Amino acid sequence: MNHFADRLVAAVKAKGNPVCVGLDPRFDLLPQSIREDAAKRHGNTPRAVAEAYLAFNKALIDALADLVPVCKPQIAFYEEFGAEGIRAYAETVRHARQKGMLVISDAKRGDIGTTAVAYARAHLGGKEITGGDGVGFDADALTVNPYMGRDTIQPYLDIGVTNGKGIFVLVKTSNPGSGDLQDLEAGGKPIYEHVAAMIADLGAKHRGASGFSPVGAVVAATYPQQARRLREVMPDSLFLVPGYGAQGATAEDAAASFRSDGLGAVVNASRGIIFAFKQEPYASQFGEAKFAEAARAAAQKMAAELNAALRRPT
Amino acid sequence: MNHFADRLVAAVKAKGNPVCVGLDPRFDLLPQSIREDAAKRHGNTPRAVAEAYLAFNKALIDALADLVPVCKPQIAFYEEFGAEGIRAYAETVRHARQKGMLVISDAKRGDIGTTAVAYARAHLGGKEITGGDGVGFDADALTVNPYMGRDTIQPYLDIGVTNGKGIFVLVKTSNPGSGDLQDLEAGGKPIYEHVAAMIADLGAKHRGASGFSPVGAVVAATYPQQARRLREVMPDSLFLVPGYGAQGATAEDAAASFRSDGLGAVVNASRGIIFAFKQEPYASQFGEAKFAEAARAAAQKMAAELNAALRRPT
Repeated sequence: MNHFADRLVAAVKAKGNPVCVGLDPRFDLLPQSIREDAAKRHGNTPRAVAEAYLAFNKALIDALADLVPVCKPQIAFYEEFGAEGIRAYAETVRHARQKGMLVISDAKRGDIGTTAVAYARAHLGGKEITGGDGVGFDADALTVNPYMGRDTIQPYLDIGVTNGKGIFVLVKTSNPGSGDLQDLEAGGKPIYEHVAAMIADLGAKHRGASGFSPVGAVVAATYPQQARRLREVMPDSLFLVPGYGAQGATAEDAAASFRSDGLGAVVNASRGIIFAFKQEPYASQFGEAKFAEAARAAAQKMAAELNAALRRPT
Repeated sequence: MNHFADRLVAAVKAKGNPVCVGLDPRFDLLPQSIREDAAKRHGNTPRAVAEAYLAFNKALIDALADLVPVCKPQIAFYEEFGAEGIRAYAETVRHARQKGMLVISDAKRGDIGTTAVAYARAHLGGKEITGGDGVGFDADALTVNPYMGRDTIQPYLDIGVTNGKGIFVLVKTSNPGSGDLQDLEAGGKPIYEHVAAMIADLGAKHRGASGFSPVGAVVAATYPQQARRLREVMPDSLFLVPGYGAQGATAEDAAASFRSDGLGAVVNASRGIIFAFKQEPYASQFGEAKFAEAARAAAQKMAAELNAALRRPT
């Protein structure tokens, strides 16, 4: 099954929930034992941060892989620590895929021509790369920024889609200022609907057996009314839904991005799951030492809430 | 002089031209001796590519540093090769700054809240980073994508500007499809003018002694009419101007982004300079072995053309 949308839909069905875990480590928030161990081995260096992130992520992935269909590492938190951070990112992607999770590389890349080709190769693989194995990150999908236009999105299709990979194009994002440009009205509809129309058109001829296209959309749970409209404009696109939990949206809000059959989206949570050990009731129940079990419990609760909101059997 | 705009204006004046060299290596286009040397030492690996890129860039920087005020490595070409590529990127930034060139990190990043903070720390430095020295890339400026809104640009100001760094926000890009979203009209003006107004406002209270703001704009030479209008909307912003040379724009087209005093912009060329040794007249005159001298000659020609178009003394 070499089609991204088919693989994601199958994984959601197999694991029985549409949860996406954001692997967004922050050094100061890691369990003390992981921080101390990394500092003892590597001192106050980027290497120490990278090793700590990797230890944290691997434990989370191992605890979540049978439960959660997909994860989404945010590359900025790794890029912050230069080449060492990027090495931890690549290892995180590899480990998650080895354990049977799909991986969305959350990098929000966007650039012209040959530059977009380089980003596509970096994140979505490709066979003609000079340099042999181990190049780039080989994720299942990449988040993409549409500001530069349709011709800057096409290279991800040319390289990624033929390779069984997908993209999620930013449409309506979760932050308070997302409306500054996205909500401006042009020709009787907001900019984000222009992007949505582009996505629907780009994906139309690439639909898989599931009926879904590999050209997905980022549609925030924090704007459920807009999400319902966007579900109509992009009936065949998978939505990646941020904003649930720490950013304030509920399971009901997130449900606006799904089709009536309960498919069509994955909902991301980052802090609420990976740092669950710092929050009640998980802090008391598990504590710092059992951070991965706390994450698992938080993911189970999120899955149950989403499935209830989608009125699907759990 | 700890203000990005002041530093860039001073560098342009000191070197007598507004040329920006795009350090965008492509393995297949490198001189054969560099490719063979890297392959001999490191085989068919990402490490070999990274070492080849670094050798190529260092030679270019050494040949250009007294002539060219600023360079712009495009991170995609390094990211393509994972952690090894990113190490070459970091080394390139470091080497260029050591040799007295300013560095614009062309990464076109854009994301919300803490994620934008991580990108700002990665590219524009910052003192409170865990991990000690050698973290991130410590460039002088970063290119930024505005699609997600004003609150996603602010973190680069909070971290970068107080640190003497700058940003260039995408406004009107050089590619054929740049108009798909950027040219849509909302409220009587195109989207790119809405972005321009945001940039002018964000930068207004951060102007340096030069009168310029550290919040710059990417404005393509391939759309000179729009550039003239944008120069009016953002009188105090520095423009980073792509599209010259290989992408088809002339020195006269690029001149549309400058103020009448001949200041206010830097013009980028990548392939036309770094791969000048593959093109006539430089191929005959210098050949592959003298690729850095060919780049220097091409940069001198570009500087003369721009200065003539700007009617400045050379």
